[in-house]
Amino acid sequence: MFKFVVKGTAFTSINQKEVEVLENSLFCITEAGTIAKIIRPDEENYMETIQEYSAKKKLEELPADQYILPGFVDLHIHAPQWAQAGTALDLPLYDWLNTYTFPLEAKFSDKEFANEVYSDLVSQLLKNGTTTALYFATVHRESSVRLAEICSEKGQRGLVGKVVMDDPEQTPDYYRDEKAETAIADTEEFIKEVLALNTKTPQGVYPVVTPRFIPSCTDEALAGLGALAAKYDVHIQSHCSESDWAHGFVFERFGKNDAFALNDFGLLGEKAIMAHAGFLSDADMGLFAEKGTAVAHCPISNAYFGNAVTPVAKLLNEYQVEVGLGSDISGGFSPSLFDNIKQAVISSRMLEDGVDKDCCSEKRGVTGSRLTLNEAFYLATAGGGESLSLPIGKLAVGFAWDVQFVTTKELPIFTKSEPLLDIFQKIVYLSHPESIQKVWVQGRKVYDKESEKRKEEN
Amino acid sequence: MFKFVVKGTAFTSINQKEVEVLENSLFCITEAGTIAKIIRPDEENYMETIQEYSAKKKLEELPADQYILPGFVDLHIHAPQWAQAGTALDLPLYDWLNTYTFPLEAKFSDKEFANEVYSDLVSQLLKNGTTTALYFATVHRESSVRLAEICSEKGQRGLVGKVVMDDPEQTPDYYRDEKAETAIADTEEFIKEVLALNTKTPQGVYPVVTPRFIPSCTDEALAGLGALAAKYDVHIQSHCSESDWAHGFVFERFGKNDAFALNDFGLLGEKAIMAHAGFLSDADMGLFAEKGTAVAHCPISNAYFGNAVTPVAKLLNEYQVEVGLGSDISGGFSPSLFDNIKQAVISSRMLEDGVDKDCCSEKRGVTGSRLTLNEAFYLATAGGGESLSLPIGKLAVGFAWDVQFVTTKELPIFTKSEPLLDIFQKIVYLSHPESIQKVWVQGRKVYDKESEKRKEEN
Ligand SMILES: [Zn+2]
Ligand SMILES: [Zn+2]
Repeated sequence: MFKFVVKGTAFTSINQKEVEVLENSLFCITEAGTIAKIIRPDEENYMETIQEYSAKKKLEELPADQYILPGFVDLHIHAPQWAQAGTALDLPLYDWLNTYTFPLEAKFSDKEFANEVYSDLVSQLLKNGTTTALYFATVHRESSVRLAEICSEKGQRGLVGKVVMDDPEQTPDYYRDEKAETAIADTEEFIKEVLALNTKTPQGVYPVVTPRFIPSCTDEALAGLGALAAKYDVHIQSHCSESDWAHGFVFERFGKNDAFALNDFGLLGEKAIMAHAGFLSDADMGLFAEKGTAVAHCPISNAYFGNAVTPVAKLLNEYQVEVGLGSDISGGFSPSLFDNIKQAVISSRMLEDGVDKDCCSEKRGVTGSRLTLNEAFYLATAGGGESLSLPIGKLAVGFAWDVQFVTTKELPIFTKSEPLLDIFQKIVYLSHPESIQKVWVQGRKVYDKESEKRKEEN
Repeated sequence: MFKFVVKGTAFTSINQKEVEVLENSLFCITEAGTIAKIIRPDEENYMETIQEYSAKKKLEELPADQYILPGFVDLHIHAPQWAQAGTALDLPLYDWLNTYTFPLEAKFSDKEFANEVYSDLVSQLLKNGTTTALYFATVHRESSVRLAEICSEKGQRGLVGKVVMDDPEQTPDYYRDEKAETAIADTEEFIKEVLALNTKTPQGVYPVVTPRFIPSCTDEALAGLGALAAKYDVHIQSHCSESDWAHGFVFERFGKNDAFALNDFGLLGEKAIMAHAGFLSDADMGLFAEKGTAVAHCPISNAYFGNAVTPVAKLLNEYQVEVGLGSDISGGFSPSLFDNIKQAVISSRMLEDGVDKDCCSEKRGVTGSRLTLNEAFYLATAGGGESLSLPIGKLAVGFAWDVQFVTTKELPIFTKSEPLLDIFQKIVYLSHPESIQKVWVQGRKVYDKESEKRKEEN
C-alpha cells in the first residue's frame, strides 16, 4: 500500500559521472514520503499498479512535456541577504560587508522584518526547485528560530544556523554576539528549540552550529561551538579558505590553514559543510576526506569574492571529498541552482583553460579541472544529499520524494527522436524558474504553478 | 502629434559607465516608431501631454511594478544551432562541430525545417527582450532569406548572413559552398533579396556578408566577399581570433593575425562585427579601433570554446573599440542577454582575479579587467547599437522605440525607499525571461505576455 504513485520519465544521478533515465516509470511513495519502489514498464506489476492506483485516484501522471528531476539541495545561503540579492556586487568585499551586508543583517533583530524576508525567500526557493537548504540566518536567536519555523510550515527541509560572530576586531559594534559565553548559550538554546520543532516537522528541520568564519570568532567561541556540535550531534557550517584575505588571516593567527584550525576546535566532521574552500592545500583536502567534511561550492559568488576557482574536480576525483552546490545568496545573486549548475561547469572550464590570453596555453589553466554537466547536476542533487548525510537528492528506493516537475514546452525540441539524455541537457541548460511546474518535499506537494496562478487571478 | 505616449520609469545607459534613471517620464513616439521627445515630470507640458494623450486613448501607463529597459541587441547568434542549444557542450570543439553542428546546419537545405526552427527562435528571442539580432544562418541561400522574412514578419530587427564556407580542407563534403564563385554569386543574390525585403520592413532587415571564419574560406572567397561588402555597403560578420587553434591557424596561413588578414580582404570597417576576438594583440586592437570594427563579446560561449577571456575592459578603455554582446547560440547555451550580461561581469572578474589558487595572487589575474554591471548592461544595449551603427539600444531622442517592460513583482524588494539604481541592479541580476511583460520594436508591440497567455488558454 502506497500513499500515491507517480508515473513519468525521470532523470537522476546514479554516481558522480552518470545520469540515468527512468523512462515512463512508476514511483511508489510511502506514507512517510519516501520512495518505496520504482517500477519500470517492462516489470510485471507495472500495468496492475497503474490500474490499482488509477482506480483509487492515487495515480498522478505527468503530461508528455514534463519530466521529473530530484529537488535541489542548496548547501550555502545567507537567508537575510535575500533582501539585497543582486545589488552592490561591484563593491570590494570590505565595503560590501560594511555598507550593505552587516547593516542589513542587523535589521533582523526585528522579527517582523525577518518574517517578511524569510517567508518570501523560502517560497522563492521552493518555486526554484530547492527542496533542501542549509541556511546562515543572523546572530539573532529568535528570528533564526522563525526561519526554521517558516521552513517547517512551508514544507521545505531546512537546516538553519544562528550565526556566531563575537570577535570585536572583525565585527561591527552594532552587529555581533555580546561575548563568547552568550554566543554559546544562545546557540544551545537555539539548538534545543529547533530540535523540538523538528519532532513536529515531517520533512525535518535541523539546527546547525554556525561560526561565521574564523576571523569573526574568538577562540573561546570556536571551542564552545565545537563542544556543542559534539554534545548534540548536529550539523556544522562555516566559511573555509574562501579568499586570499581569509586564508592569509587564519594562517597568520594560527600558523595553519582553516581546515586544520577548524579541526582543532572540533568543527570538522561527517556533518560539517564548509563553504567555498577555494584555497585548500592538498593536506587540507586530505583532512576533509578523512573527516568526511563536505565542501559547499558556490561558483557564482566565488567569481565576485573568491579570488580563484575552487578545484572541484580535484576534490572529487583525487581526494573523494563530498561536494555540493551553494547559491551563497547574496555573494551570489541567484537563488536558482540551475544557474549555479551552469556556472559550476563554466567556472571549471575557465579553470581548465585559464583566462589570460597573454599566458601561453600550456601554463594558462589547470588540466583536468573541467566538470561535465552531469557532474555539476550531481553536485546540486545527490552530492548535496551526501554532504548533509541525508537520504535526498536521488530518485532511488529509500530516498525522500523530493522532486521537481519541469516542462520542456519552451525548449528547442524539433524532432520526435531527440535522445532523452539530450533533452536532459536542454532541461538543465535552458530551464527557467518558471519551467518548474510542481515541487514536492517528503511526499508533500509544496508548490504548484497552476494553483499559484489561479490564486493570483482571484 | 505623436503616434502614442508611454508613461513610466526607465533605465538607460548614457555612456559606457553610467546608467540614468528616467523616473515617471513620458516617452513620445513618432509614426515611424522613434522617440521624438522625453518629458520629465518637472517639465511644463508634462501634465498637459498626459491629459491630451489619455483623452485620445493613446497613453500607455506602466503599472507600478514595471520598468522600461532598452531592448537587447544580440551581436552573434547562429540561428540554425537553436535546435541543439544546451546540448553537447561537454564535447571538444572538433566533435562538437562534426557530430552535432555541421550535420545540423546541413539540414537547413530543407526549407520546412528551417522555417520551423527559425520561427521558434525569433519568437523566443523577442520574448527574451532581444529586439535586434545579428544572425549567422547557413550556407543555403533560400532558407537564409526565409530567416530574414521571419524577422520582418515577427517585427524583429534582423541582420542576417548567408554563411560562406568553401574550403574543402576545413569543411565537410556534405556541407559547404560548391566553390568560391558560387559562394560569391549566392551571397550577391542573397544581398539583393534581403535589400528588397528591407524596403517593406519598417524596423529594418539587413543582409550581412558572412565568411564563417578564415579557416573555412579560400582566399578567393574572402576577397570576393570583401568586394561585395564594399559594393553594397552592407554589414560584415565573421569569427576572429576565437581560440588558440583558430588564432594559430590563421597566423600559419598568412603570417599575420586574423585582424590584419581580414583587413587585407576588405573585411574590416565601420559596419563589420567580429565575434569573440579573444586573442587580439595590441596591434589588432589598434586596427579595430582605427577601422571602427566592433567586437561581439560572447562570454558564455567563450568559457566552452574560447580558451581565454576576451579583455573587454581593455578594448573599451585603452583602445575605444566598440563592443557589444552575443549569445553565440549554441556555443553559448542561453538565448537571453540577461544571462550574457551576468556572465560578462563574472568572466571579467575571473580575468581580473585569475582562477588558479596555486598561482600567487599578484600573477593570478590581469588587473583592470573587471566590468561593472552598468558596463555589461551597456554592452547588451547601447554598445550593440553603436557596433551596428544603428540608432538603437538607448532611450534618447532619435532612437528607435525598441524596449522591454520588465516586472519587479518577484524581486526581493522589501522597502518603499529602495533606491532606483538598486532596483535596476536587481532587475538585471534577477530577471527571468518570464519577467518580461511586453516588447516593442520600432514603436510596434511585438510581444505581450498577457495576450500570449490568453491565446494559450483558448
Ligand atoms: Zn557565505
Ligand atoms: Zn559563432
